[in-house]
Amino acid sequence: MNAPSPIHFYFDFSSPYAYIASEWIAALAARHGRPVRWHAILLGVTFQAAELKSPVSYPIKREYSLRDFARSARMEGVPYVMPSPFPIPSHNAARLFWWLDSQDPQRAVDWAHAGLRGFFARGINLSDMAALQGLAAEFGIAPEQAAAICADPVWKDRLRAENEAAIAAGVFGAPFFIVDGEPFWGNDRKHQIDRWLGGER
Amino acid sequence: MNAPSPIHFYFDFSSPYAYIASEWIAALAARHGRPVRWHAILLGVTFQAAELKSPVSYPIKREYSLRDFARSARMEGVPYVMPSPFPIPSHNAARLFWWLDSQDPQRAVDWAHAGLRGFFARGINLSDMAALQGLAAEFGIAPEQAAAICADPVWKDRLRAENEAAIAAGVFGAPFFIVDGEPFWGNDRKHQIDRWLGGER
Repeated sequence: MNAPSPIHFYFDFSSPYAYIASEWIAALAARHGRPVRWHAILLGVTFQAAELKSPVSYPIKREYSLRDFARSARMEGVPYVMPSPFPIPSHNAARLFWWLDSQDPQRAVDWAHAGLRGFFARGINLSDMAALQGLAAEFGIAPEQAAAICADPVWKDRLRAENEAAIAAGVFGAPFFIVDGEPFWGNDRKHQIDRWLGGER
Repeated sequence: MNAPSPIHFYFDFSSPYAYIASEWIAALAARHGRPVRWHAILLGVTFQAAELKSPVSYPIKREYSLRDFARSARMEGVPYVMPSPFPIPSHNAARLFWWLDSQDPQRAVDWAHAGLRGFFARGINLSDMAALQGLAAEFGIAPEQAAAICADPVWKDRLRAENEAAIAAGVFGAPFFIVDGEPFWGNDRKHQIDRWLGGER
């Protein structure tokens, strides 16, 4: 029998809904005997490709969105403190993700949790190099090494290629899930993904 | 004891997610002993106020949206046939709604169901006056009367005022729900509304 195919999970370190989803995806996947393949992407790049903007960039939608972020986290049982500034550029956290992934995908997932929880529950501004280095140090990456990876063209190119691959796969937001070719967009598609994995069509 | 306050339900006759929600809102409200106050609005007007566009107007999002409309309907057990043309201007169906509402709100709700099911399950193009008149005739409104109501400045103004009231209440999409002042946007907020009505905060 073939190995079960993975749930592809696309996230941005600066997306509240991706953070919430990052806290339930492992349990949901395990219930259905599926692995999860994590993909750090930059939402801004997919927004640009799709001619979309962040919901908080629209004044009328902003107030609702901030309320819905907190409510969605609360109802999922996930600790949440609205970070400020928000949103932030997350390319450095994502480059570290792909560097770790090249060595040990599970360690990259651990870093994704550290970064998402750091930003959304501990107020660590991942776009500030000193703050990012502090978090990396907690994680066992020396500050100078973290800075060197973030500045290395290899990991800049890798992140760029991963963004392009995501867009080519139809990803236009985060969190985004692809299960056996079926796309699901949003933390609020949790129930549908669960039912889909359970065989419902 | 005071009467329980209503769930305000904002819909557009041309919104697939509002159609799906229109099929579950009554049962959900009844479970919590709440009435539902239906509001026919024009999504295009709220989009304009919020500087948003329809998801199907973005090429990358369009394909996903069409798939998600059908999947969301299927998983909710609601009959769905993607209409064409789509989206359509729905002001005439909405004017008839407000005319009926001024006489008998329950009859307006029945018309909302007839219109939404007509467009999304039976392929009746509500923006075509002859088709709309046919549906109105089935419903017991004479074709000439339906046309006269749609052209009457009283119901044009009423719809305009209802759109403005919705925008003032913070509505920027459909379906939109306001429960005791708490806003919920989207068919996919069903579970949160259910839990909120159950007392969860």
